[in-house]
Amino acid sequence: MSAFRTQGRGHLNGPVLVVGTGLLGTSIGLGLRGRGVAVYLSDPSPTNQAVAVDIGAGLPLARLEGEQPELVVVAAPPDVTADVVAKALADYPDAVVIDIASVKAGILAELRDRGADLGRYVGTHPMAGREKSGPVAARGELFTSMPWVLCPAEETLAGSLRTARALATDLGAVVSEFGADEHDEAVALVSHLPQVMSSLLASRLQGTPPHALSLAGNGLRDVTRIAASDPTLWVQILGGNAAKVVGILQGVREDLNRLIGTLENPTAPGARLDLAQLISEGNAGQSRIPGKHGGPPQAYSWLTVLVDDTPGQIARLLTEIGEIGVNLEDLRLDHSSGQNVGMVELSVLPNKHDLLIEALNDRGWRVLQ
Amino acid sequence: MSAFRTQGRGHLNGPVLVVGTGLLGTSIGLGLRGRGVAVYLSDPSPTNQAVAVDIGAGLPLARLEGEQPELVVVAAPPDVTADVVAKALADYPDAVVIDIASVKAGILAELRDRGADLGRYVGTHPMAGREKSGPVAARGELFTSMPWVLCPAEETLAGSLRTARALATDLGAVVSEFGADEHDEAVALVSHLPQVMSSLLASRLQGTPPHALSLAGNGLRDVTRIAASDPTLWVQILGGNAAKVVGILQGVREDLNRLIGTLENPTAPGARLDLAQLISEGNAGQSRIPGKHGGPPQAYSWLTVLVDDTPGQIARLLTEIGEIGVNLEDLRLDHSSGQNVGMVELSVLPNKHDLLIEALNDRGWRVLQ
Repeated sequence: MSAFRTQGRGHLNGPVLVVGTGLLGTSIGLGLRGRGVAVYLSDPSPTNQAVAVDIGAGLPLARLEGEQPELVVVAAPPDVTADVVAKALADYPDAVVIDIASVKAGILAELRDRGADLGRYVGTHPMAGREKSGPVAARGELFTSMPWVLCPAEETLAGSLRTARALATDLGAVVSEFGADEHDEAVALVSHLPQVMSSLLASRLQGTPPHALSLAGNGLRDVTRIAASDPTLWVQILGGNAAKVVGILQGVREDLNRLIGTLENPTAPGARLDLAQLISEGNAGQSRIPGKHGGPPQAYSWLTVLVDDTPGQIARLLTEIGEIGVNLEDLRLDHSSGQNVGMVELSVLPNKHDLLIEALNDRGWRVLQ
Repeated sequence: MSAFRTQGRGHLNGPVLVVGTGLLGTSIGLGLRGRGVAVYLSDPSPTNQAVAVDIGAGLPLARLEGEQPELVVVAAPPDVTADVVAKALADYPDAVVIDIASVKAGILAELRDRGADLGRYVGTHPMAGREKSGPVAARGELFTSMPWVLCPAEETLAGSLRTARALATDLGAVVSEFGADEHDEAVALVSHLPQVMSSLLASRLQGTPPHALSLAGNGLRDVTRIAASDPTLWVQILGGNAAKVVGILQGVREDLNRLIGTLENPTAPGARLDLAQLISEGNAGQSRIPGKHGGPPQAYSWLTVLVDDTPGQIARLLTEIGEIGVNLEDLRLDHSSGQNVGMVELSVLPNKHDLLIEALNDRGWRVLQ
């Protein structure tokens, strides 16, 4: 038992105080408790705090008594995060304090303005979440294999950064370091812009006749999936990163204006070239997105297998692919059909493509390549 | 053999002449040949035509000799489709002639201007395709379970429509009827707008540092997937449906201008409400997209299972789900990780959700709910 605890808890000794027992704070508590670290919990809502305690994420703050936490994790809503961090730095003068809000530069600027002790502060951003919120939805494994960005300030001491890194590593996350401003610029592009574009598109579907929507295929479904996101959360995220998001949206507006001009006069000289350029630039940008497991972008080869839409079919297919010994890079079920025949799209490394098709054909599967 | 042929070929008697042996034309030929229908092929490129003949999609046009085709399928590029349809109507005065271009009103208007015999013409749009093009990529099952829209004109005779419907049905497609204008309006929204939004977004990624792109998650990957589409094809599609696409993009531009105004002054009164409205309107539009198999939109319940990233793992998971007897509505592999632990997201009917979680937990899977 003792050996397990020593091995399991990595670099954090604890105790750790988690302020804010929503989805993320409670998940951090659960994850640390699972590694044998002492965790204390506090939340402005006594109900939230009691639920988080009941499900085993830690003990109530009152039980901390005179002990000093090694680390305070501020998991409050973005718009009160700076307040709560400043208070924690003052209340626990020996503790490292981190926050986990998804926009970083504004909080750092506010803390600096207040003269907070930034040597003990690290802004961080665990890029994990769920469709549900609140402590009941929390899971200790929420951060497993997900990115967790650390944004140390110039003033941050090396020991504070080490403690923040130990937390993320202990919870199984993949750690990277960004400056706060650099982080906000990056998430404006890879997270906030996709949300805006998806919402702008989905909003156009509000008045469409159902007949027209019956033609929806995987393209529309993919582009609008994140349009189902929570408005309350996104108001805070977009509001907190407004300047960075605006800069990118102004570029989008320029491209959109040019496209509208071209389509208003589609037979003018150069119109075809303009349209081809829009799509080609999209090709170029899309090809830069890294592949699975953070590796370089890779051109996977796709094939499609027809299956009956019954519980056992896809399992049988994947069992046989396992037997053949080919690793799947991606898998999609096709939704656009109106009959009970399913299409399973599989992507594999290019050098496995022909081998897999041949083997599946031999086993009697209908493969569309 | 004779019984099979009678049963297999549905209502089409043939012969069928396919003009244009690219991906779609050759796939139609292969599908019909598989049902025992006589098919003849013609293409301006002798090479393309020879390849299509060699892979068994039909016989060369010269072999048709004096016989009259029952049906001519024009599978030419969109910008020459009206020409080729007019010529086919004149050359084969007893045949029904259809085309399969993805924009319909312009072709119909051009044929009407020329005084073509519209009683024998049906505009159609099979909504199927592949990432590859050309006759070598053709598959007889390409249309299985995919939508195929028929757009009869006022002048179209009932018998012509019946023939077009027989073709789509014989090839396994799901048939629906739209007016040409109504079709173009629908695809502008469900197909052309998603392409434009995805390309506009992906184009912004061209100059990003790789460091920033390392934070890309499933949201960005989903929204940009179709940005990898073929520029040559999309120049013709967007150019051919320019007026309809512009109308929708003007609405997008209004919303984008409002959003930029809000984000330029994010602390102004009403700014939070404006942002919440954008996301809420996206929620409302997204929720109207029909579910799998054309059914009504359905709120599926999602759960996430952690698996090792090895060939046999996902197969074993799905085998066990098959044993448990729960049907999957959707399945996604999570790509955002940087370690070799995979997340499999599964969606099931809400009344199967708790049952499946319990059964998977019992079998030792790590389920995140």
